[in-house]
Amino acid sequence: MATIKVHGVPMSTATMRVLAALYEKDLQFELIPVDMRAGAHKQEPYLSLNPFGQIPALEDGDLSLFESRAITQYIAEEYSEKGEKLLCPGCKKVKATTNVWIQVEGQQFDPNASKLAFERVFKGMFGMTTDPAAVQELEGKLQKVLDIYEARLSKSEFLACDCFTLADLHHLPAIHYLMGTDSKVLFDSRPKVSEWVKKITARPAWAKVIDLQKQ
Amino acid sequence: MATIKVHGVPMSTATMRVLAALYEKDLQFELIPVDMRAGAHKQEPYLSLNPFGQIPALEDGDLSLFESRAITQYIAEEYSEKGEKLLCPGCKKVKATTNVWIQVEGQQFDPNASKLAFERVFKGMFGMTTDPAAVQELEGKLQKVLDIYEARLSKSEFLACDCFTLADLHHLPAIHYLMGTDSKVLFDSRPKVSEWVKKITARPAWAKVIDLQKQ
Repeated sequence: MATIKVHGVPMSTATMRVLAALYEKDLQFELIPVDMRAGAHKQEPYLSLNPFGQIPALEDGDLSLFESRAITQYIAEEYSEKGEKLLCPGCKKVKATTNVWIQVEGQQFDPNASKLAFERVFKGMFGMTTDPAAVQELEGKLQKVLDIYEARLSKSEFLACDCFTLADLHHLPAIHYLMGTDSKVLFDSRPKVSEWVKKITARPAWAKVIDLQKQ
Repeated sequence: MATIKVHGVPMSTATMRVLAALYEKDLQFELIPVDMRAGAHKQEPYLSLNPFGQIPALEDGDLSLFESRAITQYIAEEYSEKGEKLLCPGCKKVKATTNVWIQVEGQQFDPNASKLAFERVFKGMFGMTTDPAAVQELEGKLQKVLDIYEARLSKSEFLACDCFTLADLHHLPAIHYLMGTDSKVLFDSRPKVSEWVKKITARPAWAKVIDLQKQ
């Protein structure tokens, strides 16, 4: 089997999403750093891997993919027999419901959570100034989303069902960054959400992703 | 077989996405209007169908789903033997690539195209004023996305492969609205994109969605 190659950087939320899936599946892979300061992601040869010039991209043999959520789905399906099941092997109802919550992450949670992480974490890293009005607006929107998560997580242990799935995993990177900021209270103040955050961030595979950032 | 129920309105882009998939699959369904002016989507019983209070929602027997892109995927998989194939029955590579372009629509195209349609079409309907600066910014971003589509569509007839798939279908609603505005030129000025727009908007199933709006 050819080695899986991930092109990205361990600080990037989208890269972390893919790394988490690879570690959950106990797959060997090579992380190939993309020199973003030098703009390598906006030039060839990287643009041949992802014409949008964003990280990450994945190579598995002669298959080349981009968009982190499409990559995790490929990993979960192609390597279904390895490591943790990331798609609950239930009925069609569970499968369809998992897709609903995968979409909820991508369309409802992430647009707010990622922008909030950008304001509260990444702007500081890049020497930019946090915009308090933006933070307030984004926190307002995220709270409404988390209220719905609180209700959902009182009915099942994880978002899609009682198993940890890609729908949960996809949330990890933004949650990781926000838990290091004052926005932490949005998660902590909701008992079911708080329990869920503890469970998903405590996964050994996630610890390996965070370890990669320290290297 | 229980009748499929779609809760939504035929003007809504997300509802149109689901209707297009149902017509492509030649499935019988009942469209149940949601009285959005009266705020029915923000109240029970609708909130039990979609806690986010957004349209559409789908009921198929005892299965209840929301998020338009999760619904279309369910329709395509559950009714794979009916009507048009919306997922190319190719190798794992084609499947994974289809998922990439489904994500591209959701993450790169739609955030710009939907906001642009809101500025150029829906604001007028709701008696609001179009913001020219927002239009300019969104058109700039959309052009970059469409440049990548132009390159992609010079390699395959449709986005994922040489078959029409969900990855193409998901674009129809926003494109439909934008083609009735000055933003049309963004599509027309790119030969491959223009050809693709003509092909996907000419599908008989799509004509049925537009007909529903006239009733």
